[in-house]
Amino acid sequence: MKSDSSLSGIHRRLLISGLALLPAMSGLPFPVAAQAQSTQDSPLGSWNEGSAKKAILDFVRATTDQASSSFVPPEQRIATFDQDGTLWVEHPVYSQVVYCLDRVPALAEKDPKLKDVEPFKTVLSGNREAIAKLSLHDLEKILSATLTGMSVDDFEAEVKRWLASAKDGRWKRPYTDLIYQPMLEVMQYLRSNGFRTYIVTGGGQDFVRVYSERVYGIPPEQVVGTVGGTKYGYQKDGTPFLTKEPKLLLNDDNAGKPEGIHLMIGRRPYAAFGNSTGDREMLEYTGAGDGTRLMMLVLHDDAQREYAYGPAQGLPETKVGTFSQELYDEAKKKNWTVISMKNDWKRVFGFNEKG
Amino acid sequence: MKSDSSLSGIHRRLLISGLALLPAMSGLPFPVAAQAQSTQDSPLGSWNEGSAKKAILDFVRATTDQASSSFVPPEQRIATFDQDGTLWVEHPVYSQVVYCLDRVPALAEKDPKLKDVEPFKTVLSGNREAIAKLSLHDLEKILSATLTGMSVDDFEAEVKRWLASAKDGRWKRPYTDLIYQPMLEVMQYLRSNGFRTYIVTGGGQDFVRVYSERVYGIPPEQVVGTVGGTKYGYQKDGTPFLTKEPKLLLNDDNAGKPEGIHLMIGRRPYAAFGNSTGDREMLEYTGAGDGTRLMMLVLHDDAQREYAYGPAQGLPETKVGTFSQELYDEAKKKNWTVISMKNDWKRVFGFNEKG
Repeated sequence: MKSDSSLSGIHRRLLISGLALLPAMSGLPFPVAAQAQSTQDSPLGSWNEGSAKKAILDFVRATTDQASSSFVPPEQRIATFDQDGTLWVEHPVYSQVVYCLDRVPALAEKDPKLKDVEPFKTVLSGNREAIAKLSLHDLEKILSATLTGMSVDDFEAEVKRWLASAKDGRWKRPYTDLIYQPMLEVMQYLRSNGFRTYIVTGGGQDFVRVYSERVYGIPPEQVVGTVGGTKYGYQKDGTPFLTKEPKLLLNDDNAGKPEGIHLMIGRRPYAAFGNSTGDREMLEYTGAGDGTRLMMLVLHDDAQREYAYGPAQGLPETKVGTFSQELYDEAKKKNWTVISMKNDWKRVFGFNEKG
Repeated sequence: MKSDSSLSGIHRRLLISGLALLPAMSGLPFPVAAQAQSTQDSPLGSWNEGSAKKAILDFVRATTDQASSSFVPPEQRIATFDQDGTLWVEHPVYSQVVYCLDRVPALAEKDPKLKDVEPFKTVLSGNREAIAKLSLHDLEKILSATLTGMSVDDFEAEVKRWLASAKDGRWKRPYTDLIYQPMLEVMQYLRSNGFRTYIVTGGGQDFVRVYSERVYGIPPEQVVGTVGGTKYGYQKDGTPFLTKEPKLLLNDDNAGKPEGIHLMIGRRPYAAFGNSTGDREMLEYTGAGDGTRLMMLVLHDDAQREYAYGPAQGLPETKVGTFSQELYDEAKKKNWTVISMKNDWKRVFGFNEKG
């Protein structure tokens, strides 16, 4: 685990995630490419034939066939999935950061003094350029104020309310619609073969837990994320409750991912899915186990249907989910499978039958 | 979570647990009471008829009958169990503390300098009286040296080896034999009714995980315990591994239990079992949920078949698992069920058909 106990660790990944890109949130009208193909005819119906689909099918066969030398007993079948950029859209800015910014007006309503205090004043101004220029320190204040200091139950209720109304700029849909249909199919396919699927995200554990069961079919106890401490206390009538504290327990990114997997699961995964350098250690740790293991990386190379970014293969740089050339080289060297969004997926989202 | 990041928190419970009682480890030859009764004829075959058994049966009926107003959907059926004194013997000293002391000779073998350094010198002397007088600070050094600083895999292997050979003083059996048969039956009964059973222990999470699946049928991912951080790194050949660090993440006792439940499970339990003041907050938190909840406390009032200790009902004081009068009063007031080991259990252990 990281040794810093300030908030600087907990939200670093969120912060470098493209606040600078906030203007893009207004949502350019990208064309949605039509690629009409039925996707319901197999367990991986939204996948084109190719090395990525084959890697998944081969892995499941090798680990679940009792006659296979790579057979894995059901209790050991663990598969871990990064969230941002692996299960849902992360570009141009992580949805959780949008949540935090969207919460500021309500905070100021409750505590009007904030209206004259930076950085809240700037956020309330709505001036996107100014917001994009806020310092890391300022942004930490916003995240701390919006993610901690309330009861666990109140936080859950707020996130639920937000998810029900907030919409992304490009697709004009709830953020929880922006899930990659092919990845849902992989999770379902693995589960139907006895695997337990976990989310292992650099995002907030409590945030993701609010919708993980409904959206991914993954229950709260199978969400591993960046997580702060809570504090047990009593209301006036003696009812106990937990308050979210501004104390980092686990920065679940990079080396924090295998550390979080050990903390929360206590078993090495047999399959791990990611899309960025933040997932490198999780894939290394998974691949270092014996027998047959599956390591996959989603490459965002589809500007038409989703986005294209990351220096691997010469795509534009970005501040979210960096797929570096170094990661690409490691993947090739270690036989990790790179999923080309453009070539391997018949469709990207469930809401759009045509792609 | 506790804010101290030293080891003082992680092992406080272990330390106050009765090092002073170490002389008792030599094992007095207690008589084993004969109470011949078949115990295999019902899901709770080792339980006598009475309010405790009835509370368990009533709870399961109320929460699993679809026609019941207290019906609980399967995904929400969580039951949490303290370990020491609730699932296995904790008196006169927690088994994990015995493990730590037993590890010292091997440490000194590897690093001979320790033979002349306190507190290791005293432990190596075998002088029980002197060991019992070691300061908290000294004991922390022993626990830190034996529970951290090695790889996660090496630690697991060491605990496995120890469990295979170490025996308790009184029953001359492996510690993992000293499991309460009636509690195993409760866990099995709950699981057969769709509940997921978790251990929520003040003991070390990694320690308990080594044997939890074999002994309790509880997989490692369902063990919540006192836990330190790990650190991801690489061996010379590039193989990644995790090292156990002397950094406290969660002191899973008292208020730490509901905090740990939120961290690791993210759902409020419907049933919680404990035996001491360290379990009070877990039972309060469980009981504060809506619908039908089950809160139970094991009272150690059976000096013949196990032990009798704790100030509740005038039993002798002890340094393990204190069942205070205050806790007893809270239990009565809140309708928590007190399990009398002496009266409610036909037998205590699985290895002894007669009790």
